[in-house]
Amino acid sequence: MKRVTITDVAKEAHVSIKTVSNVINDSGSMRPETRQRVKQVIERLGYTINYSARSLKTGTTRIIGLAIMAFDQPWTAMYAGELIKAARRHGYSLVIDTYDDGGLSSIIDETYRVNADGWIFYADQPLADCKDILKQRYPVVLTGDSLAYGLVDSVTMPNVQPIYDITSTLIAEGVGCVGLIGAPDDLVAERRLDDVNALREGTRALRTQGYCRAFTDAGIEVNENVVIEGGRWDMNWGARGARHLLSVPAFRDARSRAVVCLNDALALGALHVFKEHGWNVPEDVQVSGFDDIEESRHCNPALTTVNSHLDQYADSAISMLIERIEGADSPVRVISTDFVIERRASTAF
Amino acid sequence: MKRVTITDVAKEAHVSIKTVSNVINDSGSMRPETRQRVKQVIERLGYTINYSARSLKTGTTRIIGLAIMAFDQPWTAMYAGELIKAARRHGYSLVIDTYDDGGLSSIIDETYRVNADGWIFYADQPLADCKDILKQRYPVVLTGDSLAYGLVDSVTMPNVQPIYDITSTLIAEGVGCVGLIGAPDDLVAERRLDDVNALREGTRALRTQGYCRAFTDAGIEVNENVVIEGGRWDMNWGARGARHLLSVPAFRDARSRAVVCLNDALALGALHVFKEHGWNVPEDVQVSGFDDIEESRHCNPALTTVNSHLDQYADSAISMLIERIEGADSPVRVISTDFVIERRASTAF
Repeated sequence: MKRVTITDVAKEAHVSIKTVSNVINDSGSMRPETRQRVKQVIERLGYTINYSARSLKTGTTRIIGLAIMAFDQPWTAMYAGELIKAARRHGYSLVIDTYDDGGLSSIIDETYRVNADGWIFYADQPLADCKDILKQRYPVVLTGDSLAYGLVDSVTMPNVQPIYDITSTLIAEGVGCVGLIGAPDDLVAERRLDDVNALREGTRALRTQGYCRAFTDAGIEVNENVVIEGGRWDMNWGARGARHLLSVPAFRDARSRAVVCLNDALALGALHVFKEHGWNVPEDVQVSGFDDIEESRHCNPALTTVNSHLDQYADSAISMLIERIEGADSPVRVISTDFVIERRASTAF
Repeated sequence: MKRVTITDVAKEAHVSIKTVSNVINDSGSMRPETRQRVKQVIERLGYTINYSARSLKTGTTRIIGLAIMAFDQPWTAMYAGELIKAARRHGYSLVIDTYDDGGLSSIIDETYRVNADGWIFYADQPLADCKDILKQRYPVVLTGDSLAYGLVDSVTMPNVQPIYDITSTLIAEGVGCVGLIGAPDDLVAERRLDDVNALREGTRALRTQGYCRAFTDAGIEVNENVVIEGGRWDMNWGARGARHLLSVPAFRDARSRAVVCLNDALALGALHVFKEHGWNVPEDVQVSGFDDIEESRHCNPALTTVNSHLDQYADSAISMLIERIEGADSPVRVISTDFVIERRASTAF
C-alpha cells in the first residue's frame, strides 16, 4: 500500500505543496474555499502526516516510553495505569514495552524504533553488570529499587522500613512464629540470608532486610526454615510458599503464627491456601502484603498491606522525565516516596 | 543534545561512510582491524542508528501497536500479556497505547507517532458511530465484541453461549433467585432490558443476552430488580452490585440464590461483600464470573468462570495482523474462539 504524499494532495487539489502545508498547519493566508477544498482532498485521499519524517525535523513526539517487565503481576498494571494518568496530566502519551527474562538490555534496540521523547525504565533487580543501559541518546528516568549510579534521575519507594515496622509489631505482640514469603531465591537456596544486609538495592533484598533487622533488633535469631523464596512474586508462588510453610514444624506447630509477604500477589496466594487448609485469618495465622493493589481490599479477609503512594511515585517519574526532555540540565536527582501501613482484617494489630 | 551521525563516526575513524555502514550491517569486506576500530568509535561516540530515518526507507519496524482502554481491570493486563507473548513468538514487539473515556478515536493521532507496522484495536463498545476509525493507512485487526463492518479482520470470543449455559444450569437446578451483575448501564437505568435481544455487539449486551435468553427458554420472566448495571466492570462495581442485591427483597429473601457476574473482577468484588455479610458461598449464594483471570483460582472460594482461550484469541489477532503487514490481500476474516466453563467451589453445579 503506497503512502499518499503531500505532493499527491497538492496535485489533486491543483495547489502548491506550500499551500497544502499551510492547510495542515492551519497557517498562511488563502481563500476559505481553497482551504476547504484542500481539506476535502486530504480526507478523500486519506493523507496522513508522515511522523517519521516530521520527527526527524522537530525531534519531538510528546510520547513517553515505559520499559517494564511482563504483565504477570497485578502491580505492573497498576503502575502502568498511574503512569498513563500522570503523563496525560502533562499532555503526553505513554507507550509500554516489556522485557521478560532477557532484562532491560534486551529491549534497548526496540526503544529506538518507537519514537518516544524519553523513557522510564523499571528495574527491580540491580543493574550493576549492565549500568551502561542507563546511557542512552534519549532522556531516561530509572524507577524501581536499583541504583542509578548518578547517571540518571531515579524514583524509589521505601522498602526496608515498612517491612521492619510490620515484623517488629508482630514480634512485639508475641506471635510464636513469623514467617516470610518472597525472599531472594539465591539467598534462600544457598542459605546465605546473612548476606542480605550487605545488599543495598533490589526490591526483594531490601524488603527482606527489613524483616531480618526487626529480628536482630529484638535480639532474636532469624529462623531460616520459615524464610521462603519468592519465585515470580505472583499468586502461584504465594500459594506455593504457604504450602511450604505448612510443612515446616516450627511454623505449623507454633502457638501463634504470622506471614509477612513481600507483595500483595504473594499474600493473596497464601491467604487462599491457609483458608483451604481450614485456618482462620487472622486468628490462626496473620497475613500482610505490600503494594495496596485493588484486590487487597476485596479479598477475604481484606489484606493489611503497605501503601507507598504509587500516584506520587508515577508523577515524580513523569515530571522529572519531562523536565529532561525539555532540556533541564540540573544534577541528577533521587526521589523516594513515603508510605503508610493500611491495617485491615488479615492481621490482628 | 546533538545526535551523533554516521558522518561523525566516519570522520573520527578515518574511513568512508560506506565502510561505517558495512560495519553496522555486518557486511562488505575490510580488514578485521578496521572493523574493530570502527566498532570502537561507534561505541565511544555513542552512535545509534536513526530509526526515524531508517523507517522512512524500509517502512518496517517489526513493532505492533495495541490500542486498549485503561489498565483498570485485571483482564486488560492479562490480554496485553498474551499479546506480548504471541508477538514475540512471531519476532515482533508490542507497544501499548491506552484510551480512556475518549474512546479509540481519541488516540488515532498518537498511533501515527509510534512507528508501528500495524495496530490491534480493542473495543468492547459498538463502533457504529465511528467505524471510520477502522480505515487507517496501517493494517488494523479489531478485537473485542464490536462489528468490523467488513473493513478489517476481527477476533471475537463467545459471549452469549457461556452465560446462557451457566444461567440455564442454575435455573434447571431450581435456584430461587438468579441475579446478574454487569448489565449495560443504560438498559438498566431506562428499564429497557427487552432491547438487549436486538443488540448484536458490545460485550455487556451480548453476555446479558445469554442471561435473558436462558429465562425466556425456561418460560420464566426476567426480574429486572435483580439485574444490576456494571459501571466500570471492576471489583468496586462488583461490591456495589452485591450490596444493591442485598437490598432487594426478591433476592435477599429467596430460598436459594445465585449471581451471574459478567466478568471475574465483578465476581471478586461480589464474593467479598457476601462473605462480609456472613453468607457462605456457595451454600447461601452461588457466584460465577467470566475470563478466568489468575485471581479467580486464588480467591476464597475459588471462582467458577468462563475460560475463552485468551491465548488462542491473542495469537489469532497477531497472526492475522502480521499477514496483512506482509501484504496479504485476502478478504477480511472473523475468527471466534471457543470456550470452557471452569467449575470451581463458588458454585454447586
